[in-house]
Amino acid sequence: MNVIDYLRQHIRTVPDWPSPGVQFRDITPLLQNPRVFRVLIDQFVHRYMAPDLRPDVVAGIDARGFILGAVIAYELNIGFVPIRKKGKLPFDTVSEEYELEYGSATVEIHTDAVRPGDCVLLIDDLIATGGTMMAGKRLLEKLGASVIEGAAIVDLPELGGSMLLRDAGLPLFTLVDFAGH
Amino acid sequence: MNVIDYLRQHIRTVPDWPSPGVQFRDITPLLQNPRVFRVLIDQFVHRYMAPDLRPDVVAGIDARGFILGAVIAYELNIGFVPIRKKGKLPFDTVSEEYELEYGSATVEIHTDAVRPGDCVLLIDDLIATGGTMMAGKRLLEKLGASVIEGAAIVDLPELGGSMLLRDAGLPLFTLVDFAGH
Repeated sequence: MNVIDYLRQHIRTVPDWPSPGVQFRDITPLLQNPRVFRVLIDQFVHRYMAPDLRPDVVAGIDARGFILGAVIAYELNIGFVPIRKKGKLPFDTVSEEYELEYGSATVEIHTDAVRPGDCVLLIDDLIATGGTMMAGKRLLEKLGASVIEGAAIVDLPELGGSMLLRDAGLPLFTLVDFAGH
Repeated sequence: MNVIDYLRQHIRTVPDWPSPGVQFRDITPLLQNPRVFRVLIDQFVHRYMAPDLRPDVVAGIDARGFILGAVIAYELNIGFVPIRKKGKLPFDTVSEEYELEYGSATVEIHTDAVRPGDCVLLIDDLIATGGTMMAGKRLLEKLGASVIEGAAIVDLPELGGSMLLRDAGLPLFTLVDFAGH
């Protein structure tokens, strides 16, 4: 079996969560099996060890992006910085608002999390509408950094986020896509 | 300089956050410097590689516990499971409520996250009143697992959490303590 099918087998679909008609793609089974977890992480680590893609720092998006991002940063011997929901970071922050289906949300980053010129790898678990990752990109650019790539385990292409992000000039790397949601 | 003083130097104290009179211990500077991050993580990894302390699985507490817990699990070649705030986990869960200064909060874990008899390492970033870690311990025990140790970067001993947890039979391992809060 190829590695992508192996990973796909360990993503659990939970029907009608968090609301009726939604097929939620649950990544927790990927994490709890040691072999699958290692195969998963190493897909990212091996890619970003390449000299032309090697980032200066990994930014992980609250909260499942912390799980992947922290391990990838450790393995690459680079730093990890969190992008968090509003009100969670104690030091000076910059913030970006983005739209949700109903209403809006805000993400923040510490102003000293990255330096101007840093090349950042931006990590989340899943790309749906792309709103969070787009806001993360804008946050990092506000601080003078550039995002070398956005990476996630799952892409839901029908929700349009990955196309939106690529159209905005953000290269993406995702492992498993699910059509139908 | 010894390793604990080296780590302590990279914890940032933010005065009056999240409320007046609180000295918040911000661990994000430990993560963003690659050398400090590696030294930090390896304090835990080296400890839990010992045969008598080696866990079957790492449980990380939402959300800063994900950062440490995921890396430690990867390095130990064991699985990682998240303990999350109420309403964040999509599959079948068990839950535990715990008291806050004002009101209460609930944490949850997937029912298939651990198996009866599993020895679990429970990870958070900081021990204050100990309420979250105690609730995490109860969650794991509800599923028939036992917690081999609770581990965190920072202990605030004056808030009484570490004493409470030890009195409840949970061995603890923390790296840096701060008297005065």
